[in-house]
Amino acid sequence: MATETAPPQTPTPEGAYVQPRIDVAALQAVLDGKYAEIRNLVRSNLADYASVLEDAETMSVDDYRERVKEIVVEMAATGQTGMGFPESYGGGGDIGASIAAFETLAFGDLSVLVKVGVQFGLFGGAILQLGTKEHHDAYLSKLITGELMGCFAMTETGHGSNVQALGTVATYDVATQEFVITTTREDARKDYIGNAAKHAEVAVVFAQLHVAGGSEGVHAFVVPIREGGKPCAGVRIEDDGLKMGLNGVDNGRLWFDEVRVPRTSMLNRFADVTPAGVYESAIENPNKRFFTMLGTLIQGRVCVGGAGINAAKVAMTIATKYALHRRQFEATSEDEEELLLDYGMHQRRLFPLLARTYALHFTQERVAGELHDILSGVVESEHRQRELESLAAGAKALGTWHATRTIQECREACGGAGYLSINRFAALKADTDVFTTFEGDNHVLLQLVAKGLLTDYSSEFSDLDQFGMVKFVAGLAVETVLERTNVHKLLERIKDVLPGGDDGWDQEAGLLDSDYQLTMLRFREEHMLGGVARRLKRGIDQKMNPGAVFSRVQDHVIGAARAHVERLVLEAFVEKTRAQPDGDLKVALNLLCDLHALSTIEADRAWFMEHGRLTTARSKAISREVSSLCRKLRPLAGDLVDAFGVPPEMLRSPDLVRPGLVGGA
Amino acid sequence: MATETAPPQTPTPEGAYVQPRIDVAALQAVLDGKYAEIRNLVRSNLADYASVLEDAETMSVDDYRERVKEIVVEMAATGQTGMGFPESYGGGGDIGASIAAFETLAFGDLSVLVKVGVQFGLFGGAILQLGTKEHHDAYLSKLITGELMGCFAMTETGHGSNVQALGTVATYDVATQEFVITTTREDARKDYIGNAAKHAEVAVVFAQLHVAGGSEGVHAFVVPIREGGKPCAGVRIEDDGLKMGLNGVDNGRLWFDEVRVPRTSMLNRFADVTPAGVYESAIENPNKRFFTMLGTLIQGRVCVGGAGINAAKVAMTIATKYALHRRQFEATSEDEEELLLDYGMHQRRLFPLLARTYALHFTQERVAGELHDILSGVVESEHRQRELESLAAGAKALGTWHATRTIQECREACGGAGYLSINRFAALKADTDVFTTFEGDNHVLLQLVAKGLLTDYSSEFSDLDQFGMVKFVAGLAVETVLERTNVHKLLERIKDVLPGGDDGWDQEAGLLDSDYQLTMLRFREEHMLGGVARRLKRGIDQKMNPGAVFSRVQDHVIGAARAHVERLVLEAFVEKTRAQPDGDLKVALNLLCDLHALSTIEADRAWFMEHGRLTTARSKAISREVSSLCRKLRPLAGDLVDAFGVPPEMLRSPDLVRPGLVGGA
Repeated sequence: MATETAPPQTPTPEGAYVQPRIDVAALQAVLDGKYAEIRNLVRSNLADYASVLEDAETMSVDDYRERVKEIVVEMAATGQTGMGFPESYGGGGDIGASIAAFETLAFGDLSVLVKVGVQFGLFGGAILQLGTKEHHDAYLSKLITGELMGCFAMTETGHGSNVQALGTVATYDVATQEFVITTTREDARKDYIGNAAKHAEVAVVFAQLHVAGGSEGVHAFVVPIREGGKPCAGVRIEDDGLKMGLNGVDNGRLWFDEVRVPRTSMLNRFADVTPAGVYESAIENPNKRFFTMLGTLIQGRVCVGGAGINAAKVAMTIATKYALHRRQFEATSEDEEELLLDYGMHQRRLFPLLARTYALHFTQERVAGELHDILSGVVESEHRQRELESLAAGAKALGTWHATRTIQECREACGGAGYLSINRFAALKADTDVFTTFEGDNHVLLQLVAKGLLTDYSSEFSDLDQFGMVKFVAGLAVETVLERTNVHKLLERIKDVLPGGDDGWDQEAGLLDSDYQLTMLRFREEHMLGGVARRLKRGIDQKMNPGAVFSRVQDHVIGAARAHVERLVLEAFVEKTRAQPDGDLKVALNLLCDLHALSTIEADRAWFMEHGRLTTARSKAISREVSSLCRKLRPLAGDLVDAFGVPPEMLRSPDLVRPGLVGGA
Repeated sequence: MATETAPPQTPTPEGAYVQPRIDVAALQAVLDGKYAEIRNLVRSNLADYASVLEDAETMSVDDYRERVKEIVVEMAATGQTGMGFPESYGGGGDIGASIAAFETLAFGDLSVLVKVGVQFGLFGGAILQLGTKEHHDAYLSKLITGELMGCFAMTETGHGSNVQALGTVATYDVATQEFVITTTREDARKDYIGNAAKHAEVAVVFAQLHVAGGSEGVHAFVVPIREGGKPCAGVRIEDDGLKMGLNGVDNGRLWFDEVRVPRTSMLNRFADVTPAGVYESAIENPNKRFFTMLGTLIQGRVCVGGAGINAAKVAMTIATKYALHRRQFEATSEDEEELLLDYGMHQRRLFPLLARTYALHFTQERVAGELHDILSGVVESEHRQRELESLAAGAKALGTWHATRTIQECREACGGAGYLSINRFAALKADTDVFTTFEGDNHVLLQLVAKGLLTDYSSEFSDLDQFGMVKFVAGLAVETVLERTNVHKLLERIKDVLPGGDDGWDQEAGLLDSDYQLTMLRFREEHMLGGVARRLKRGIDQKMNPGAVFSRVQDHVIGAARAHVERLVLEAFVEKTRAQPDGDLKVALNLLCDLHALSTIEADRAWFMEHGRLTTARSKAISREVSSLCRKLRPLAGDLVDAFGVPPEMLRSPDLVRPGLVGGA
């Protein structure tokens, strides 16, 4: 690696390690990528409204909700929140920029973030993606400015993950040319709906469409729910009450008692009902139709994943800065106490998470770029669209779990001080907690990923009902899956990749060779996927109930999906690192990338040993190398978190991020 | 195992598994143990004051603090909180009962719990354990009723874990026969002190004792800090402000500006200053003296560990009950959706945590029993005392980490509903978060455990300064350690334990043989400990700086400590299970105990493979057995959580714990 270090440094013996110097601004430019400008606009808006972090603690829930709404509307006026809408309606016409803006907003108060997500992402996104020109003309301009507030009424108390089983019904009444929206049973009330308790005037309501006695599946309708602050006739609204966090967002419940809306209220991009009551859609297969509709809404998932990663950056920044000046216990000297970050354990706790934050950041950049290309029509490929949906689901799961884990570890690494609200972890923990659940429960999302892999993204079979999925995989496609995941073939291919061919696994390939690291993750993914397919097939062959088969294989299914996404994450990081020009920055990113790869392998080294891809000696060598990489990263840690560019106002933590008071001389 | 099932069941072929039926009341009696009566008093008090769970959400911080104080005083009147004090002062004279009462209180609002801990455990405990008759007469009766509120002012902003480095100074003034208490520098302010911001009238202040120009180390002094609601002269008090949780407890900061207290204010059980200014102590070695003083305060650690375990029970109860009626997605049937608890993944998420909750419960029972015997003088052994301190530290770390992890997993397992405050997880998460830090940071505590093991509980070397510890271990005692942790000798011993001797590891010993399971954990512990000793010695032999050696070995040190505590936890569970009379209850506990043992081994199976104790085939067999045990526990899950005896009023969660509304037909 030393051959890659920058010229300004003193020449060293071949192969010796030279510690790189990081140009923080240059690294931030790499992280910010092509959306630096919008990211900086958001950073500056965040700093302007920094007081909301305190308002969240001091205001009553009602006042805090109003304050958050105000800020959202004021930020909208800067153009920050409308980037994803067409310019003809006052938007920015750049989906990639809209995601970058949203992600960056996650450095600040997360109620503001989620309110923005609800208004412009969920509500605005549904109007844009599921509606047609009439709806765009009626709503987009007003919702982009925040003049019209709306909500996205999909989830019900009884059904969150299984959207196809919703209980709300919209029946077409041909006599009046209206839809009649009804909450058919108590657990079909809409629930946890952001903006519903207080601010939304209209809702996009997802309901089972009944036309002429037939049921056509779930469709979306624009329904006025509030006028002059009062619920509309037939609409009952209840406040969801206090939540663990995000209390600046007014979540609520909605019941509909035969609420009538005109025929044109149906968001009819993919299906429509004629005035005479005939159901029409260009997409014949009902599953495929439903999946196509939902597919247009994946931007929310991409946004939440990115928000999780950026919230983790705030926690990493605070914990790292604290460990860079906090001393406790004499260790290397009998006179001075040791810096926390000089403890091996502290490095082990923080640095793999730091490396993973970088890895997920670059993955997110790739996902957002792909989403931009597909939604903007730069790329038109149904297969790519399905792949993107899968990637978005997987990245959301990994990004949000990473947030939960990182924020917790960073809080603990700041000791008792981390418990005070002024030090940010309280809000970070409470507000991000639901990220693992909303926009798709992470476990359900990983099943979606696995289903895509097992069925080669077949859109014929597109819901999440495991009963059908098992039969499908075990029946039609299993040979294909086994073909695609043939481990022997993979081993053949590997001979071309690793020095030493098949022996290269354990002997000749260097641990720091990214081809070796990627091959390990690819092997795991394909082996697990093949194993799942075989186990499903075996269960069906033995005439077991498909559901029972699925239940037994479920952790394997989810493991395979996770292995797939982990491989994509490492690929994104490796590609980004390789693309950098030679120099110190590349050296530093290489260290992080190696640490991410090896700590990922280390975490699952039992599996690699069980499947003959690691000897016990090499497994131990990986653990030693992880510790060694941590020591190399120690002097770079401060720069590596500074490059995230979290505005200082967002850190608060006066006693943690500044030397002086705490851990003094 | 079938041979152990109860007579009422139908006879089955030899070896076939018969599902046990659980008598919930009988199982609760096993869990409650000999303190069922006091536990039931607390359960009933909790139910009486159930409204505080709502008050925590609806009241202002000031009102909530007052309400919590009120409840604490009213509960004190029932005798519940004074169990640990001598009967002559109005206490219950039963330390075991006082721990049982405290643990049970963790089913309810945790601000009440922590306020009780501060007042009766920390403040009252310091007066009782560090003071002498004069202090007991002056304070105990009044503090037991809550008439006199106090606080425990040990932690400073600059020093939490390293108590020996505190900056507050108490200088003896021979002229006036007073101590002068002074905050010598800004980071020596007392911080995070419960009861300090509002309610405490006196503080037990830990300060460096200066007498006649010499420094005698940290000692404790009773210092009035507030009178008629106003700070006393020379005392400055600041509110710590809003915290992540526990906002019913008034944490604050204290500064002392030459505050004078009479000579008799020093808590003088272990050391004293004569009127003429001569320092006297029966314990010559200052380290040992300090450690002896701190050692009397371990009850707090035992209590927090127990509280963590019981908070986890609340979360487990809610998540299990929810999964027993919530349905989502068609799986085994095309007509009805599947119960969450019938999904293999859901079982895998919850059941190992449930088994571990039982394991930690029985460990806690052992720790509390040992503490009772030692503090009550039933047992007098310095070695046992040191072992207890180590066990208490380790059990606190594992118990509180278990709480954090279990509450998080249970929240996620309840989906979006888990995010609403009414469903308890918000408070459980926020309030327990600091458990991993207070009463000793978990990582520091595990270092303490390791130090005890490496030095055979030598009290000569009793602080936590790693510099000295490394030299000590590497120098004096390393041969002893290596002797005690000789893996070859262990392997010899194992031949007597396992069927098939050394081959028994992998071939003949059954996975469900608890001797096999215990041997695995014991091997890991001793091997890791020996490895640590060798690495420390090697580093010193190579003339490395002891601190640098320690930093590199630190994760190994902590791993060894954790391995030690894990072995003790399994031992406690195995012993408890073996002690049960034959019958269904024993069968059920055996299933749980096997699941706990095997999922513990599974979690670290990489280590066992790396160290030749598991073949890859057997490793995979363990994972299969864990899944199989989960399926066997599935029908018992509801009873297993009911036996915790969490009062229904403490669960709240109306939509989660009762069938009906949610996931309806």
